[in-house]
Amino acid sequence: MSPDARPTTKLQPPSAETLTTLETIVGEQYALRDPKDMAPYLTEWRDRYRGKAAIVVKPGSTDEVAAVLKCANDARAAVVPQGGNTGLWAPRSPMESGSQIVLSLERLAHIRDVDLASNTMTVEAGLTLADAQQRAETVGRLFPLSLSSEGSCQIGGVLSTNAGGLAVLAYGNARDLALGLEVVLADGRVWHGLKGLRKDNTGYDLKNLFIGAEGTLGVITAAVLRLFPRPAERVTCMAGLGDLESATELLARMRDAAGPMLTAFEILPRIGLDFAIKHGTGLHDPLRAPHAWYVLLEVSSPLAGATVHDLVQTQLAGAIESGVIEDAVLTTSDRQTGELWKLREVMSEVQKYEGGSIKHDVSVPIAHVPEFIVRANDLVELMIPGARPVPFGHLGDGNIHYNVSQPVGMDKDVYLANWEALNAAVHEIVLDLGGSISAEHGIGRMKRDLLPHAKGAVAIDLMKSIKASFDPNGILNPGKLL
Amino acid sequence: MSPDARPTTKLQPPSAETLTTLETIVGEQYALRDPKDMAPYLTEWRDRYRGKAAIVVKPGSTDEVAAVLKCANDARAAVVPQGGNTGLWAPRSPMESGSQIVLSLERLAHIRDVDLASNTMTVEAGLTLADAQQRAETVGRLFPLSLSSEGSCQIGGVLSTNAGGLAVLAYGNARDLALGLEVVLADGRVWHGLKGLRKDNTGYDLKNLFIGAEGTLGVITAAVLRLFPRPAERVTCMAGLGDLESATELLARMRDAAGPMLTAFEILPRIGLDFAIKHGTGLHDPLRAPHAWYVLLEVSSPLAGATVHDLVQTQLAGAIESGVIEDAVLTTSDRQTGELWKLREVMSEVQKYEGGSIKHDVSVPIAHVPEFIVRANDLVELMIPGARPVPFGHLGDGNIHYNVSQPVGMDKDVYLANWEALNAAVHEIVLDLGGSISAEHGIGRMKRDLLPHAKGAVAIDLMKSIKASFDPNGILNPGKLL
Repeated sequence: MSPDARPTTKLQPPSAETLTTLETIVGEQYALRDPKDMAPYLTEWRDRYRGKAAIVVKPGSTDEVAAVLKCANDARAAVVPQGGNTGLWAPRSPMESGSQIVLSLERLAHIRDVDLASNTMTVEAGLTLADAQQRAETVGRLFPLSLSSEGSCQIGGVLSTNAGGLAVLAYGNARDLALGLEVVLADGRVWHGLKGLRKDNTGYDLKNLFIGAEGTLGVITAAVLRLFPRPAERVTCMAGLGDLESATELLARMRDAAGPMLTAFEILPRIGLDFAIKHGTGLHDPLRAPHAWYVLLEVSSPLAGATVHDLVQTQLAGAIESGVIEDAVLTTSDRQTGELWKLREVMSEVQKYEGGSIKHDVSVPIAHVPEFIVRANDLVELMIPGARPVPFGHLGDGNIHYNVSQPVGMDKDVYLANWEALNAAVHEIVLDLGGSISAEHGIGRMKRDLLPHAKGAVAIDLMKSIKASFDPNGILNPGKLL
Repeated sequence: MSPDARPTTKLQPPSAETLTTLETIVGEQYALRDPKDMAPYLTEWRDRYRGKAAIVVKPGSTDEVAAVLKCANDARAAVVPQGGNTGLWAPRSPMESGSQIVLSLERLAHIRDVDLASNTMTVEAGLTLADAQQRAETVGRLFPLSLSSEGSCQIGGVLSTNAGGLAVLAYGNARDLALGLEVVLADGRVWHGLKGLRKDNTGYDLKNLFIGAEGTLGVITAAVLRLFPRPAERVTCMAGLGDLESATELLARMRDAAGPMLTAFEILPRIGLDFAIKHGTGLHDPLRAPHAWYVLLEVSSPLAGATVHDLVQTQLAGAIESGVIEDAVLTTSDRQTGELWKLREVMSEVQKYEGGSIKHDVSVPIAHVPEFIVRANDLVELMIPGARPVPFGHLGDGNIHYNVSQPVGMDKDVYLANWEALNAAVHEIVLDLGGSISAEHGIGRMKRDLLPHAKGAVAIDLMKSIKASFDPNGILNPGKLL
């Protein structure tokens, strides 16, 4: 290892001269210094962090991003790259000191190219995910990444956090959906890695290093995204099950039967459905009787017609017969499909109405999901009797949002004071089962202190040496991730 | 950038004491020092490079690999990690000096774990690809990576070179097929990244940095591989086409129609078929009349029965009707399928019988493949009149093996003297079209000098800084890649 992963140079608040230079680079109207103008860029969406900044700059081109970073690097001033600012662990919101430069990518929102033969689309970092999906649809293709924040989150942020979402099972994470990147480095140089190639074995994989680095190694300004054919047919089903082992058994059966056509496999606990029906609008119990667990699955096929419907129906009938599932409903209209998906989509939001919720975004090997949930539930009951686990999420990826609602009647603040202690104990189970303490939401600021224990000294050392080489002055997103 | 990407420490030939220490670590019978015993480890398979070494060591465990590397690093002695030594650009064969330590992974060939619920398999680096495929088949799964060298190439080498092969279109490169790695670093520390998770957003992506690094950043000792359901049905077809634009049109149609079930889309030129039929054993013209181009495609489906066959037949009929293809044959037996694939598989080998062949392994965006081949063919005719281009390969990935057979009757050595000049000129076209000069074979030693021009100064600088941090003494595979 490099013996000289040097201590970060002392960062400086930007001088008046630096601020003027930044204004000149982006133009006065795109350099915000009035606290009122800056406010929307300084609040994390859940209001958990509220930052200050010296200036918010909104460059209009890659060259301007490069000039901003060169200026900041020369001045040893901290830069917080910002997309839609929708990250869950505060990856992109500025710290409290008020000495940081917020670099908003929102003006870099062009679609530079659409290549239908290659099934790729070259877009800038500030484009919203919804706009990217929309453009893909307009040209008869699918950009499969799908998140609840898709209306406001931006491609640069989605890549910097390697976002996951609802279609990972079939299409992969954000990482898998980008073929090439354009990145401005800390010193203002530009890496032109904007290639639309499925195969390129020429040296170290820089693309994947920047993806998921949460803006600490460079600022992504553009990306080549992969497009896919739009499925001709989607079959959606909600199944009720008696236990979680049955859910992994159903997953195995569906994976074998549908192969790459299995595009979603989500689990919901009964309590989650209760919350959704109670607090959501127009949501109903999807099956006649209650069940301990629910699986929401989707099979998508290029084949229109009855084939895929038959396949799913045959599998469900077999699963009922052998006792794997207790009941199931196959949707017959878009409206009904929308209702089933809404039950899943409101799962996080409806917990608000039940008081405080302590959250975990974890993954374990799929085989260990049932054991994880049993052990975590036992632990919760031991630590906070009466607390109500609402584990839900992407069983097909082994990724569980292990959220725990407070006991009925407990004071919310008293309950939330258990956050760190419960996290620590749940994460021990996750690590014991070979899992990850952040499956899709990243590290940001909130989970930063947890990283060394979860990754081990060797990984942290490698990461620090990469950070020191790529950003020797430590100006990029300080205080986040590492 | 780190201003102190320091010059590599001067490497030393291992002293007698170092050699004795290495013998002690792995055991005398696994430390070869007799030139006769070492010979099989020192010859690159195409005989293009023949190396010397100070010692060949064959550790039997990750701990022994770690001890070997620590010893070598302390002694500043160069180490060449070696798998099956089947790489095409000499990534793993030792240099001529005779002062290097060859580290063979062949004894680390165990399957540590098979997890059917998670669809993963944990294997050691020395396992051959064929053995990995075989084990997957035994448990009713598919490990889709498929290469002509699969009988001898090893998982560690396959990952270090990010091998591609025949199933990339549907399943991805080696990179996409590994979820986690165990890696011994240059100083002997071990990175335990052997997680079998589909989702893990905890810091920088170290896994993808080691994959494709050709053994220059660390030695992969084990990996968690992804397994897939075995398709119930495969439909194979050979189509004859008048031009390459029709091939990209057919690709677009098949991709839309079959989506993720399209598992192979290869192109062959008529001259390649002529070579195969002339020099191969028992190979016949697959269609009644000759065609300028051939597409070999495969659609695999979890659905058994006639559905997929019908889908392909419908598409082919439509393509014939609209003039996209001239003729086609759908196989009706395993024997016939085998014959079609054999035409593709012998494509590289049969060129030997036609004299010298100057090779390129390039990729361009799929849309640009026809233009690339037209421009490259014109260039060849200009530079070496009468030379015979045999461009073939993975059109579905934009990856063309642009091989050029010598003019009939020319002296082979005279022809091969054009290797570098032709490479340089062809690579200019590739770069002009946004392509890669090494799509799946990597850089190794032969393409090392081409890298700076192809990647640009910024990328090279980033790579060098990573190399300097991970292997500050430069002991790992010196003279390769960077």
